[in-house]
Amino acid sequence: MNGAQSLIRTLVDGGVDVCFANPGTSEMHFVAALDSVPEMRGVLALFEGVVTGAADGYGRMADKPAATLLHLGPGMVNGMANLHNARRAHTPIVNVIGDHALSHKGFDAPLESDIDALSEWTHGWNRTSTDSAVIGRDAAEAVAAARTAPGRIANLVLPADVSWGPDGVVASPIEPPAPSIVDDSTIAAVADVLRSGESTVILLGAGATRERGLLAASRIAVATGAKPLIETFPARLERGAGLPVFDRMGYLSEQVQWQLTDVKHLILVGAKAPVSFFAYPGKASELTPEGCKVHTLADLGEDVAAALESLADSVAADAKPVLQEPSRPALPSGVLTPQNWAEVIGALLPEGAIISDEANTSGLMIPMVTAGAPRHDVLTLTGGAIGQGLPVGVGAAIACPDRPVVCLQSDGSAMYTISALWTMARENLNVTTVILNNRAYAILRMELMRVGAEGAGPNANSLLDLSTPDMDFVKMAEGMGVPASRATTAEELAEQFSRALAEPGPHLIDAMVPSLI
Amino acid sequence: MNGAQSLIRTLVDGGVDVCFANPGTSEMHFVAALDSVPEMRGVLALFEGVVTGAADGYGRMADKPAATLLHLGPGMVNGMANLHNARRAHTPIVNVIGDHALSHKGFDAPLESDIDALSEWTHGWNRTSTDSAVIGRDAAEAVAAARTAPGRIANLVLPADVSWGPDGVVASPIEPPAPSIVDDSTIAAVADVLRSGESTVILLGAGATRERGLLAASRIAVATGAKPLIETFPARLERGAGLPVFDRMGYLSEQVQWQLTDVKHLILVGAKAPVSFFAYPGKASELTPEGCKVHTLADLGEDVAAALESLADSVAADAKPVLQEPSRPALPSGVLTPQNWAEVIGALLPEGAIISDEANTSGLMIPMVTAGAPRHDVLTLTGGAIGQGLPVGVGAAIACPDRPVVCLQSDGSAMYTISALWTMARENLNVTTVILNNRAYAILRMELMRVGAEGAGPNANSLLDLSTPDMDFVKMAEGMGVPASRATTAEELAEQFSRALAEPGPHLIDAMVPSLI
Repeated sequence: MNGAQSLIRTLVDGGVDVCFANPGTSEMHFVAALDSVPEMRGVLALFEGVVTGAADGYGRMADKPAATLLHLGPGMVNGMANLHNARRAHTPIVNVIGDHALSHKGFDAPLESDIDALSEWTHGWNRTSTDSAVIGRDAAEAVAAARTAPGRIANLVLPADVSWGPDGVVASPIEPPAPSIVDDSTIAAVADVLRSGESTVILLGAGATRERGLLAASRIAVATGAKPLIETFPARLERGAGLPVFDRMGYLSEQVQWQLTDVKHLILVGAKAPVSFFAYPGKASELTPEGCKVHTLADLGEDVAAALESLADSVAADAKPVLQEPSRPALPSGVLTPQNWAEVIGALLPEGAIISDEANTSGLMIPMVTAGAPRHDVLTLTGGAIGQGLPVGVGAAIACPDRPVVCLQSDGSAMYTISALWTMARENLNVTTVILNNRAYAILRMELMRVGAEGAGPNANSLLDLSTPDMDFVKMAEGMGVPASRATTAEELAEQFSRALAEPGPHLIDAMVPSLI
Repeated sequence: MNGAQSLIRTLVDGGVDVCFANPGTSEMHFVAALDSVPEMRGVLALFEGVVTGAADGYGRMADKPAATLLHLGPGMVNGMANLHNARRAHTPIVNVIGDHALSHKGFDAPLESDIDALSEWTHGWNRTSTDSAVIGRDAAEAVAAARTAPGRIANLVLPADVSWGPDGVVASPIEPPAPSIVDDSTIAAVADVLRSGESTVILLGAGATRERGLLAASRIAVATGAKPLIETFPARLERGAGLPVFDRMGYLSEQVQWQLTDVKHLILVGAKAPVSFFAYPGKASELTPEGCKVHTLADLGEDVAAALESLADSVAADAKPVLQEPSRPALPSGVLTPQNWAEVIGALLPEGAIISDEANTSGLMIPMVTAGAPRHDVLTLTGGAIGQGLPVGVGAAIACPDRPVVCLQSDGSAMYTISALWTMARENLNVTTVILNNRAYAILRMELMRVGAEGAGPNANSLLDLSTPDMDFVKMAEGMGVPASRATTAEELAEQFSRALAEPGPHLIDAMVPSLI
């Protein structure tokens, strides 16, 4: 058994049985070994940003890592923007980064670069395997590292000669450490805060945005009057009729300041105290209001849901959570607007949908109109590195083949990783992509005003304009094998969205939604 | 004048008047400042890999740097694969990397990451500007650093508050140091080698692949019998009728070994001794044959062309260079083959063309059939990071608006940076893209055999296959505003290629060329 075979077998034994891949020559033994371990599903993407974004979407929905296969440093860098998002989402991922043979490293061949520096950038677990006999053990440790709470990126560098070396040994899975349990004194202290009766917000992040955490938070809210909020960009938010539904903290600092007005206590549950996404001249970066005390119930790496449940048992023993009633907007009509396209989605969102939300400014209304839709998950742009939405949709669809995936996708952001459509077609994934084609980097038009930049004229504005030439996402999708259509009215969007959901495989709708700005 | 305005004015004063950009919020003051300094041409790309690849193509053809504008760490990483190629090409580039305000850095906002680590990866000149009053000076130093022989990447991090701060000062241009002159004793020693009469190869890289170097090398060859070869992946090779035309060193180690059989002396001129692109089990990485002595005439950073001319004056005072006669293949006919599509290009290549060559396996015949074509430049994949060809075409067209650019582009590699087509349309660039659509990662099919990977079956081969679904580049191009057509015969390719060259603006031809392998 060669190193690559022992690596793949070890991954599969550890529960990692999907590998998103964009291989090159140095990975050819790994590729060949896929036929020796057929339990590993290789999923080809045409660009590494799709590979890593898909691994992120997969990990968020499967609650276990996928592997990736990346081609040396230059292949890895192509995937790093979406690794940045995955890092912020605390998604477990095992990157297998092919490298030159150890015997070849000293020659500065054209593709040589400092992979260690790239690995460090992801703030994860890093290892370069140096022997075919230990690559299995290294892989088992990588899986355990990725699965260690709250989840992280494990980078395993696989030199080509370690891959092809003959003495591979399969390693047994290693159980990651259980998340720490929050101690009773911390829970008691936070309980005292809640009993004070002072205005309190509970900010829910990481594991607290799933059913258990939401139910406990709702009980606490009912019993104490504290207001739960979801962090601005949750990795995975469970949502819809039958669950407690809370507002998300705003993206704009003005929104956050409004949400925290007169709040005396901010309780953090797997979340960080709010800071502005960007800096603005003369405005604060920290958004916790003066005089508001910050308390941490549970940190990342701790059992966040259990802590919330203990807290609920302490302060809300008899309280029942408030569950969202089913409710949908009426199907709208007329030319598409920033409002009515969202109502179409709210009216038609199917049971069990997974929304990959990179709608940016166009998506402002989506949370309101989907609150009472059937239960669904929302995956958001955790790290702000655009080009996440379509790849995450790929990964979510592979993790959950029986659930419909809906990508709500801005036009500008879509173009970073547009080749994800080809992988959707290749794997016949049930992904419906709605492109919000407003022909602009609309968020930057807003930000150009917000940062107080003076003197902006036609040269500046032309850099925010996507209408010269107009992009036709129908043609692009068809060029990559995805059936597509264009919607200019709410009726067309409703008809096309319904049809896309009813038919198996991927579809794209190019929705001509004008910009808010 | 704010920091951004002083930065842009300093760049323009230093001759840097094109900025390839993909901005975000932290760069909005830079964007706004473009209207204050209208001499700076902002060129929008939809993905940072296009931004940096375009800057590479521009720098290779303009012999001076373009600027780029990148959005924090996640924007920069998206551009780093093509920076890797630019580094290997020794292309001068000034990257302006927007960052959070210095006052905001400590808060770990979502887009925060270690930009310094990324800058280090590019092996260039790095600076973070810390004050609006010094950003002008920092920019002048960045331009000088980029222009220091042989050319390199300068990374200038621009925090948002340095950009918006009010006390910007324009700095005068700084002249970079002249390249060192190779000393007489080195030239004399190499001259002695050439006079030995022993079998000698002169390997030409960097500046030696331009007219002056080629003419000198040809004189040396005529006088001494030494054989000049061009390095495998030259950054810019001047070529065609009226110039000396030499073979390139092969990509495969078998080819190199054949080219160096019985060679006793290898003279390096701005090039490195050959090493295998990848390692293969049981094969050597260093390709210089045993017993062959390696001599360095001129290193990178030295005046390579002047050294060759001095050497020629020493050993070949009376020799005349051998100039390629005009010669073109006949226009072929019939269904496209790996051979005849290249003959079409050779038959029709226009005077002054710039070829961006990322044809990979499909391009095997191109050097042969274009040797006697009208004079042209060839830009190749210097660092092996695919996805270079279309962006480099963008940059070359902006550097040389009066010359036709021809992108010879493999299908798989095209998809990494396909949105370059949109920038071609937006800027109405005279770029003719010929996609070699062989529906496979053909080079990996070859490499899978060459690395001796056993057991490869359907799972492995499916990861090298691009035919499920087939990609339709005509639709993709039209979706991004580029007129396009499909060619399945040599006659169609000839007709479409001629028409594309005759009409202004970009065109794409989806050439259905079967794979060699």
